[in-house]
Amino acid sequence: MPMLDAFSPLAPQESEPLYRQLYNRVRAAIAAGTLGPGDRVPSARALAKEQGVARGTVELAYALLVSEGYLLARGQAGTVVNPELQPMAPSAAPRPAALQPAEQMQDSLWRPAQLLPFQMGVPALDEFPRKTWARLGARYLRGMGTADLDYPPPHGLPALRSAIASYLQVARGIDCGAHQVFVTTGWGSSLQFVAHALLQPGERAWVEDPGYPPARQTLRKFGLTPVPVPVDEDGLDVARGIALAGDARLAVVTPAHQSPLSMTLSLPRRQALLDWAAAADSWVVEDDYDGEYRYVSRPLPALASLDRHGRVLYTGTFSKVLFPGIRLAYLVVPQALVATFERVGRMLFAATTPAMTQAIVADFMTEGHFARHIQRMRRLYGERRALTAAALARGLNGCAQVAPAPGGMHLLLRLPGQATDLALAERLLAQGMAGQPLSSWWASPRRDSGLLVSFTNCATASQAERFGALVRQSL
Amino acid sequence: MPMLDAFSPLAPQESEPLYRQLYNRVRAAIAAGTLGPGDRVPSARALAKEQGVARGTVELAYALLVSEGYLLARGQAGTVVNPELQPMAPSAAPRPAALQPAEQMQDSLWRPAQLLPFQMGVPALDEFPRKTWARLGARYLRGMGTADLDYPPPHGLPALRSAIASYLQVARGIDCGAHQVFVTTGWGSSLQFVAHALLQPGERAWVEDPGYPPARQTLRKFGLTPVPVPVDEDGLDVARGIALAGDARLAVVTPAHQSPLSMTLSLPRRQALLDWAAAADSWVVEDDYDGEYRYVSRPLPALASLDRHGRVLYTGTFSKVLFPGIRLAYLVVPQALVATFERVGRMLFAATTPAMTQAIVADFMTEGHFARHIQRMRRLYGERRALTAAALARGLNGCAQVAPAPGGMHLLLRLPGQATDLALAERLLAQGMAGQPLSSWWASPRRDSGLLVSFTNCATASQAERFGALVRQSL
Repeated sequence: MPMLDAFSPLAPQESEPLYRQLYNRVRAAIAAGTLGPGDRVPSARALAKEQGVARGTVELAYALLVSEGYLLARGQAGTVVNPELQPMAPSAAPRPAALQPAEQMQDSLWRPAQLLPFQMGVPALDEFPRKTWARLGARYLRGMGTADLDYPPPHGLPALRSAIASYLQVARGIDCGAHQVFVTTGWGSSLQFVAHALLQPGERAWVEDPGYPPARQTLRKFGLTPVPVPVDEDGLDVARGIALAGDARLAVVTPAHQSPLSMTLSLPRRQALLDWAAAADSWVVEDDYDGEYRYVSRPLPALASLDRHGRVLYTGTFSKVLFPGIRLAYLVVPQALVATFERVGRMLFAATTPAMTQAIVADFMTEGHFARHIQRMRRLYGERRALTAAALARGLNGCAQVAPAPGGMHLLLRLPGQATDLALAERLLAQGMAGQPLSSWWASPRRDSGLLVSFTNCATASQAERFGALVRQSL
Repeated sequence: MPMLDAFSPLAPQESEPLYRQLYNRVRAAIAAGTLGPGDRVPSARALAKEQGVARGTVELAYALLVSEGYLLARGQAGTVVNPELQPMAPSAAPRPAALQPAEQMQDSLWRPAQLLPFQMGVPALDEFPRKTWARLGARYLRGMGTADLDYPPPHGLPALRSAIASYLQVARGIDCGAHQVFVTTGWGSSLQFVAHALLQPGERAWVEDPGYPPARQTLRKFGLTPVPVPVDEDGLDVARGIALAGDARLAVVTPAHQSPLSMTLSLPRRQALLDWAAAADSWVVEDDYDGEYRYVSRPLPALASLDRHGRVLYTGTFSKVLFPGIRLAYLVVPQALVATFERVGRMLFAATTPAMTQAIVADFMTEGHFARHIQRMRRLYGERRALTAAALARGLNGCAQVAPAPGGMHLLLRLPGQATDLALAERLLAQGMAGQPLSSWWASPRRDSGLLVSFTNCATASQAERFGALVRQSL
């Protein structure tokens, strides 16, 4: 344990509290490379004894380091330096501020300070029917009675739950009742809800590799261990998942268009996944964030529509079909789990979205604006996708390929070599364009290089051409 | 381990899945008294071997039982029957549906299906300036641009954070900047946020006894152990807290008006609490849910205003000063923790409230409606409090006393004997009146009997008199 040796005694008389001194030293040790990714740090008990400080002091320093992603608490296996910390250049000065786990590294790449062209996950905000929305909103506000000021029902307004159930029946082939629909503030909340209702700390969960990094982070936050399972042209490799962790309690998947590679989970794989879940008494979270957007054929029915054994928890969101600022999503649970989710939800996930938002969305849906909007967007996105792909290709001029994808909200521009995408994404950002580096979506060291280019929100053909040209010049 | 012996082998051919059979058996064993509160159940491994089933099957059954409050997972100490399960009458038939932990027992008492007179935590909905609200809302909706449709900034709209900071400065004496304010969807979210940012599973947290039961439940859900600390006429007994668990990492307190007994945390106690936190490197969550409502003197400054060592996390909510359906609350963190909360919040607690709600509240505050509304309510609640107390006393006709309280939103009607309040509350509920049983607020077996009677939302004097009379007739 190199760190212990490197430590001189802490200085109780310094103005900085002891835990903070300790915290800084661990960060410095990581920065200096004395402690590398995966290295185990001394137990709080041992270090406290060594330093002659209270164990709570060490525990606090460790807790801070864990919360910031420097360390990872592994229960009985001890506490280790986060294996996903970016490897540091050996000559790097020990500047703690420069250290972040890979997933937190590129905050500005994940969500820039302002909306940029090609930014991931943003629907066509310019085309949202704001006037209709304002009209429904004003009508709700004018008609608001005292009952509307009270807590909304714990699991969502009945009108909204029922509108969602009807929509899913028609659009996604899911046969569910309104009582199976639980309203949440976002996909992250839905995932937390599932984790709290069905899983125990220490259990394992399959995640797609590559896959949406916040899924891994959220699972870890709740004491679960994400197990990255590779995807191939048929989507999640279920057999590999079983070989890696057949006893996992959960699988988090994006069957419609894999996030970020956009292939569809094939029917045999869907069946294999459901069979595994039924046999292993495990659960599947279906993240259907962009299932509506399919351009080459009809949208596929959701995985949940095939679920005969009640293993699939379906998660949907209004962020991509209405707008992200709405903070409204939902979870559909199998009939047999309704009572469990009602109980668990009543405490931790109840009534977290304002009655006003829920009521306006319910009206928007039942009065037909929702279906109309999605249809319009599907057509518009098909056009924007073709336009963006063509302009990108012109700019690239053959030096890299835009991968074809049957649906979704972004294109994938594969790049040669490894992790060249990070520097490229930063260069694009400096030019006011968002291109998310594919390498940061991998959990395994494979880290194929590429750029994710969203085409749904407004961007001009000349911007896309400039994007392509900039990539070409950098290769 | 009596349960093991009582089990006959599970029947794999039955239509019910094995985990469900197991789940039902454990519930039945608890109902029959074979397993009592605090009893340890066999490890999943042992039971799986005994029954010849997969360990995952047992784990799932246990997970369900934990999520429903029957069992409590205690890490290495094993899994036990929830010690807070209501003791059952020995003659009770083993009907699982009748079993709920004390805290989940009286769902309809906690939050009736519809708003009832005297219901706890509901402000004067009849007096909320709905017209002003509708006007501000419609104005926001009309002016909404594409930027307003994007994700709101992760920790809240700057205008709202800054309005909250200014308000707290003036009204609660807290010297904080807008960047220290984090917007959340409710008090529960604020507490989760603190737990995730600063605590580790297994750590202990002081809670007031009696105290708000959801605080205990939320802490337990996150793997923390609530340590009930008694309150006396000066509020939380800090010396007792130190004796019980001096190494706790957190104390959750209601300094303005203790919830539910309404005394104020005295100045020496405030100092002792802050001294303990600084010395033990621990944190204090100040739950100031009704600090604005003081009738006999000026509202006291918040505990956070005395905090010289950056140990207090201040939590406020708009549920009680605007209306519960708004789902908007906030957390104010010490300067030194801002970066930590920004990092942790970005992943799990970011952007959970709609931009629309935040924007309307910011306007409501900066345009002076908020301060005016609170002033009006303070006056109105003072009147309703006097009116309700007098009418209750007439109905009670001397058979029980209404405790005086300097502020808050409810009166306490102390009852003789133990836990007679539960049956009484149910009788009141049947008459369309909400009176929350004090006994369910205790964590310790003390369980003094009483009824909590809110006076803030509309209720007539004759209703209060009927309430008092009903109590008198039942004693």
